[in-house]
Amino acid sequence: MAETKTAQMIYLFEEGNKDMKDLLGGKGANLAEMTRMNFPVPPGFTITTEVCREYYRLGKRFPDTLKDDILEKIKILETKMGKQFGGSDNPLLLSVRSGAKFSMPGMMDTILNLGLNSQTIEGMIKRTGNPRFVLESYRRFIHMYSDVVLGIPKKRFEELLTAKKAKYGFKEDSQLTPEALTELIGEYKALVKKESGKDFPEDVREQLLSAIEAVFASWNNDRAIIYRDKEGISHDLGTAVNIQSMVFGNLGDNSGTGVAFTRNASTGENVITGDYLVNAQGEDVVAGVRTPLKISALKDQYPDLYAKFSELAKQLEKHYADLQDLEFTVEDGKLYLLQTRSAKRTAQAAVTIARDLVKEGLISKEEAVMRMNPDQIDQLLHPYFSPEAKAQVLKDGKLLAKGTPASPGAACGKAVFTAEEAIREAAHGNVVLVRPETTPDDAGGMLAAKGILTATGGPTSHAALVARGWGIPCVVGCEAVSIDEEKGEFKIGNRVFPAGTVISIDGGTGEVIEGSVDLIYPSDLPEAAKEILSWADEMRVLGVYANADNPKDAHRARALGAKGIGLCRTEHMFMGAERLPMVQKMILSAGEAERLKRAVDRLESEAKDKKGMIQELLEKTRKELETPWKEYMENLAALKVLQKEDFRGILKEMEGYWVIIRLLDPPLHEFLPPYDELLVEIERMKLTGGDPVKLAEKEKLLEKVKSMKEFNPMLGLRVCRLGIVFPEIFKMQVKAILEAACELKAQGVDVKPEIMIPGVGHIEEMKYNRTMVDAMAKEVFDEKGMSVVYKVGTMIELPRACTIAGKLSKVAQFFSFGTNDLTQTTYGYSRDDASKSFIPVYLEKGILEVDPFQVLDREGVGRLMEMAVKEGREANPQLEVGICGEHGGEPNSIAFCHHLGLDYVSCSPYRVPIARLAAAQSALREKSAKEYSNK
Amino acid sequence: MAETKTAQMIYLFEEGNKDMKDLLGGKGANLAEMTRMNFPVPPGFTITTEVCREYYRLGKRFPDTLKDDILEKIKILETKMGKQFGGSDNPLLLSVRSGAKFSMPGMMDTILNLGLNSQTIEGMIKRTGNPRFVLESYRRFIHMYSDVVLGIPKKRFEELLTAKKAKYGFKEDSQLTPEALTELIGEYKALVKKESGKDFPEDVREQLLSAIEAVFASWNNDRAIIYRDKEGISHDLGTAVNIQSMVFGNLGDNSGTGVAFTRNASTGENVITGDYLVNAQGEDVVAGVRTPLKISALKDQYPDLYAKFSELAKQLEKHYADLQDLEFTVEDGKLYLLQTRSAKRTAQAAVTIARDLVKEGLISKEEAVMRMNPDQIDQLLHPYFSPEAKAQVLKDGKLLAKGTPASPGAACGKAVFTAEEAIREAAHGNVVLVRPETTPDDAGGMLAAKGILTATGGPTSHAALVARGWGIPCVVGCEAVSIDEEKGEFKIGNRVFPAGTVISIDGGTGEVIEGSVDLIYPSDLPEAAKEILSWADEMRVLGVYANADNPKDAHRARALGAKGIGLCRTEHMFMGAERLPMVQKMILSAGEAERLKRAVDRLESEAKDKKGMIQELLEKTRKELETPWKEYMENLAALKVLQKEDFRGILKEMEGYWVIIRLLDPPLHEFLPPYDELLVEIERMKLTGGDPVKLAEKEKLLEKVKSMKEFNPMLGLRVCRLGIVFPEIFKMQVKAILEAACELKAQGVDVKPEIMIPGVGHIEEMKYNRTMVDAMAKEVFDEKGMSVVYKVGTMIELPRACTIAGKLSKVAQFFSFGTNDLTQTTYGYSRDDASKSFIPVYLEKGILEVDPFQVLDREGVGRLMEMAVKEGREANPQLEVGICGEHGGEPNSIAFCHHLGLDYVSCSPYRVPIARLAAAQSALREKSAKEYSNK
Repeated sequence: MAETKTAQMIYLFEEGNKDMKDLLGGKGANLAEMTRMNFPVPPGFTITTEVCREYYRLGKRFPDTLKDDILEKIKILETKMGKQFGGSDNPLLLSVRSGAKFSMPGMMDTILNLGLNSQTIEGMIKRTGNPRFVLESYRRFIHMYSDVVLGIPKKRFEELLTAKKAKYGFKEDSQLTPEALTELIGEYKALVKKESGKDFPEDVREQLLSAIEAVFASWNNDRAIIYRDKEGISHDLGTAVNIQSMVFGNLGDNSGTGVAFTRNASTGENVITGDYLVNAQGEDVVAGVRTPLKISALKDQYPDLYAKFSELAKQLEKHYADLQDLEFTVEDGKLYLLQTRSAKRTAQAAVTIARDLVKEGLISKEEAVMRMNPDQIDQLLHPYFSPEAKAQVLKDGKLLAKGTPASPGAACGKAVFTAEEAIREAAHGNVVLVRPETTPDDAGGMLAAKGILTATGGPTSHAALVARGWGIPCVVGCEAVSIDEEKGEFKIGNRVFPAGTVISIDGGTGEVIEGSVDLIYPSDLPEAAKEILSWADEMRVLGVYANADNPKDAHRARALGAKGIGLCRTEHMFMGAERLPMVQKMILSAGEAERLKRAVDRLESEAKDKKGMIQELLEKTRKELETPWKEYMENLAALKVLQKEDFRGILKEMEGYWVIIRLLDPPLHEFLPPYDELLVEIERMKLTGGDPVKLAEKEKLLEKVKSMKEFNPMLGLRVCRLGIVFPEIFKMQVKAILEAACELKAQGVDVKPEIMIPGVGHIEEMKYNRTMVDAMAKEVFDEKGMSVVYKVGTMIELPRACTIAGKLSKVAQFFSFGTNDLTQTTYGYSRDDASKSFIPVYLEKGILEVDPFQVLDREGVGRLMEMAVKEGREANPQLEVGICGEHGGEPNSIAFCHHLGLDYVSCSPYRVPIARLAAAQSALREKSAKEYSNK
Repeated sequence: MAETKTAQMIYLFEEGNKDMKDLLGGKGANLAEMTRMNFPVPPGFTITTEVCREYYRLGKRFPDTLKDDILEKIKILETKMGKQFGGSDNPLLLSVRSGAKFSMPGMMDTILNLGLNSQTIEGMIKRTGNPRFVLESYRRFIHMYSDVVLGIPKKRFEELLTAKKAKYGFKEDSQLTPEALTELIGEYKALVKKESGKDFPEDVREQLLSAIEAVFASWNNDRAIIYRDKEGISHDLGTAVNIQSMVFGNLGDNSGTGVAFTRNASTGENVITGDYLVNAQGEDVVAGVRTPLKISALKDQYPDLYAKFSELAKQLEKHYADLQDLEFTVEDGKLYLLQTRSAKRTAQAAVTIARDLVKEGLISKEEAVMRMNPDQIDQLLHPYFSPEAKAQVLKDGKLLAKGTPASPGAACGKAVFTAEEAIREAAHGNVVLVRPETTPDDAGGMLAAKGILTATGGPTSHAALVARGWGIPCVVGCEAVSIDEEKGEFKIGNRVFPAGTVISIDGGTGEVIEGSVDLIYPSDLPEAAKEILSWADEMRVLGVYANADNPKDAHRARALGAKGIGLCRTEHMFMGAERLPMVQKMILSAGEAERLKRAVDRLESEAKDKKGMIQELLEKTRKELETPWKEYMENLAALKVLQKEDFRGILKEMEGYWVIIRLLDPPLHEFLPPYDELLVEIERMKLTGGDPVKLAEKEKLLEKVKSMKEFNPMLGLRVCRLGIVFPEIFKMQVKAILEAACELKAQGVDVKPEIMIPGVGHIEEMKYNRTMVDAMAKEVFDEKGMSVVYKVGTMIELPRACTIAGKLSKVAQFFSFGTNDLTQTTYGYSRDDASKSFIPVYLEKGILEVDPFQVLDREGVGRLMEMAVKEGREANPQLEVGICGEHGGEPNSIAFCHHLGLDYVSCSPYRVPIARLAAAQSALREKSAKEYSNK
């Protein structure tokens, strides 16, 4: 293959700057920036990422002139340092480090102390007077180099080390004497010779070039590839290589090394934090062999050094306008900076620092908002493991398994395996509900549990959806767990855990931990977060509503900043021990009542002019109708009294804000006992000779349940279809809403109800229900002698609704995208089925990049939404358009909603802050003319 | 309300013509036309439909000048006839008949002999010398007028008539003597006085005006409204009123009356047919009291009259260029024509006549094609009841019930209630399968039955779909029928019919008849139909393919004119007693095999550079994979052998034509035993202490079935998802197809296979499967040392597929719209559930005009199709686009496919002729620049 002439392949640190991350990697760019700022950085240079790409293009070969170029740059370093690379007098040692554009911590390789060999160690010993230090450095170098460059397993060296310590009775590596080290180095070299067939290289240039090649190669090691896949980093970027003069923090008590944050990365407090080890190398800090000093202690012990360091640190923070994570070394009293980068931080610290940086004038409010990560906002609202406690349990080997993080937050409690147990045990302490998977029957138990763990299911499984909605920490799809409900135990591997075993889960990471871990409970959003969100509110265009079905959730939503209810589901108002019996009675009479009612209506219109036969049939049908109609109406009336109370509570809680109430949505059979259970129960009664009266009753019920059973309930008799087949049910709900509204208004409460007709696909469905609502409103207002302002709209959740949006918007005053269902029908995926069967395989095989139930699909679902928004608004410019599907709380989807120009997004109360932030970020991104990503 | 000045309100017959049906109604326009042609029509005039509309606009009041206008026209009639309206000497009698634009037979009112009163009967008696005739006419007039105009129930008059006959000991009306008639007339008048409070009108003008008003009123009687609703006739059209001088066929043997067709309306033979009664009025022919003469007999007995009549008849036929249905009367040897209209005819007659009219040069081929009714073509292919036999059984009161016609044709047989019974009994004679509803389990029994009757379900229920596909007559949703499988009987009302009762059903009308009815079996399309269809083939643009799953159906399709297979479903190839056990074994191993295979693939890629742990895990997983993989592969291999034979048969049958084969579509659990049954079986085994080994086996199976159970199978793990989760199944099918194709080609057969990937919604699904097919093709071709041309395409059956058509068409070589599924997902309706629950209510309440599973929904589904065609073709102009959903055989939907510019429609073999015709009609309609109807 022809070689392409590369541009500048190597940059001395003084030649680069912080904006050259593409070419120099993050580490290299920051080293260059610090050098350019005249900060004390050991001299060095960076081989560009372009060289790495060229290396792969050439079939893993260096470009022709690279070697000469490297050697030339080494000469410059020698001059600057006054040392000789491979020199026996005052040898120059080097570090060789990878450095990609995006941080990939620990994924690629690093080699320190490069340049040591039989000659140079002599020179080093001479200069340091510390043979133990030099020999130990050499031993480490051989170990590291052999692993990284020669591919000889570390274990082999560790075995030799262990044997040596055993021979001399040493416990710690630091006890090794120069003699022991010399022996060990000999054995190491013999091992290298045996494994690689060659002597360990004495030639420092060979060491250097091989190390550089090893770093290039490490770009494509397994863990790096997996990491990039997970983080969505392109495999084509390549890594830069940083070659830097070594400085030594382990030359005596006047030397040392440390890591520091320019502020507290846990709390955000504006105090430098970090650790410092006297007479040590960087590795020692990380290895945790000796307890480091807090950096604050440095202030007392080495005030000058600390003053110098803190000045540099603050300069860097100011320069980068962000919290910095620094590595530094002090060699013989001289301070060197080895790295600076934006620091990882807790959610708490992130908001505090961003707010403070604005107050300090270092960044704008917009920048502060853009810097917030929506996931972090989420964390602020859920209990989390105390970082110290968690580090400890991990260290103790208490991590049992890892599942899919499904609802953030951490929880500890006794493991229970059924919903009933959860409810019972919750009275005596915290429980974690552990289930193969959950179903709507488990709702009570889920609500009682502090956390939920399922063995199967993905992030859109029932457990995950419910848990997120209710803000309960949840881990799903933890396949390592196998549950034996009957025995009352679960297994992980060979270990058996009986019911009652205390476990902890982290729904943000998927971790399942044995025993309890200290939790920290945020009572409210921190003030800093509130302040940043209040700035975000000024920047965003999208409104943020919440989905809430009861006054408690509505209250929480309002407290978290929701400016309305975008979806109040009414199906829960048909549930509950008190209500279910009347609901069931109502349903069992509804079918016949409505069928006969239709017959009566038809006959009445036919009998208008006619007497005789039709009249007779009419009378007969009216008579047949009486009993079921009475049963139907009585139970509906009783339900109305209760539902009115529900609506009153929500409307009052949301005083002054619009509340969108969706009429009954699920198929009626969801309120009846499950068919399978009845079937088995009856079979059992038959075989064991149960009470024949009860049996007959059960059989009648079975027949009814069977007649209402559906092959595909998701596509069956539900949504507005219910209101057309059973208009009395919808009428009851509408009257309950409007009566509640009138009564509150009479008490001076500012109520704003909106009535949402679910699942409209045909214009006549909307017209029928709009007419019904308006008629009920007239009835209520006439009766009460007053009126309230209300709106009638529809949920857009079927592809067909999108195709007729222009017609619909003339009858509907608002559209609310139900993107859960719209995704189901657009893709033809049943959420419940797909997420446990083929979606995981699709993600694994790369058919889908993301689960469309989690991140809104712009190409398909989004295109239909776009059509609906455009044509709906064209036909009715006053049309109000929002989204109330799960996507309404997901940042990427919110960005798309912003792009579509929706009026608001509505999401679960816990996600309201996320939505406020994401909406503002979308507006800012648009403002800064960056194209919204179509990922 | 202000009166609007109407235009000409009344047209004398000589003022109108046949093209004025809007204004004069069908009857009036034709009477005018005949008058204009100087045919012997009794003089008269027509009050326009506009007057009727005005009458309703004015709140049921005549326009001001109407009365004068009528009386003026009466004067003209008096002059023409030389008679006086209300005159005692030579009185003019009139008929008053409704006549709307569209024929509504028997729906509206008619009054004959108007103008009789105490005076005029005297004059009539004098002129005719036949008091009995005159008094009988008067009696009938009072009876008819009192019913129609005064609203006095007919029954009351019938009671008086019966009493009178009893008094004199008469059996027949014709025995009534003038004396008895005079008494009866007196009693009739007394009744009228009592019921209406007024004397029966003597004033003939009052008679006339009231009669006209009664005809206007009858436009809105119940039966007319219901009829128009059913026929889709607008309620705003109004009716015209025809007032015509009476002529009398009952003045002696030189008089008579008859009805005739210009050709044979049953067979189409070019011979005048009809009936004639000597000395009789029109009513007598209809009443069937006396046996009429065949019109051919007239030829011998009254040759001059016949010659005159047949000449007029042929002139009329030629003038109208269509078969005419004539009414005529002979008064004293003088022939009068009272009506002509295009005649209703059998399907057989329709094709024969249309073909003959072309041969005779009376109409063009295009006109012949346009005149064909697709429903009639359908009838030609199904057995039908002998019209005489059916008339007889209806007369005998054998009609039991009426359901929804679901698959045309008639059938007789013993009623059986289970599929097993059907199969068993079919060996001993014809059976009709009577089920509450059918499921795929009933397939064998359905195929064995001559007809299918279900108590529930609509025209798109399982029974209906399967029956239509297989050409089996079927009536569904016959709610009057209730089946007790255990007792082996069904009930209709209070009547109980045991199994084995012979019943007959007409799947074209929905009739269910007790006993058997003679059937006529068409062996092939009549020659005339073939000829017309061959003309149609030259006119159409759309291709016509058939859906066929086996060589037999393919053969039939080809014989009926299909030029390819648009959909060969392969799921039946997994069925059958021989195959199901291997399919079940295959499925039970598939899940684990594919899961472990994926794990192995993943580990292999991870282990590429790495040794150690991953390698160990890989080996372990490979080992685990062995057993399930072997089971999986062995059963797939055995299935491949059988499926290859299936494909060979079909490809050979369709030599030279493209055959589109769809890879496996339904969810795998459809091939496993039903969950409910297993559940009950296990419960029973547990309670009755069944064999523990078997129980354990069953429980294991139950667990597997449960794990594969889906909430919404329609939206679950099916279609191309199967091929991605279980690639080996699709690979097996592709290899079976291509190996069969190669082997046939080697034998010199011209094979053209197309492989269709079902249910694609994401571009990656298509890419994955296209890659798979091409790889398999390469394997097969390499192995065989030869290749065949094949195409790979997709079924467009998800809304999302429509939104990405531009991307898809770059990977798919053809699109085939699966409009059944596309309708399901666009509307969010499960076909199986919707057609039994809410669609009937929707149709009843007018939410839907038609069932979208029967007639393609242009607004929603059609819009998505349009998007897909446009964007698919833009991206790939070579893209082949067709439709293979049920709609492909429905004329209105075919018209839309023509409008969309599809390449072909594909439908069940039996509907191929319909599709050929409908396609031609669509092309002709477009050609004649008429807009396609958007109904």
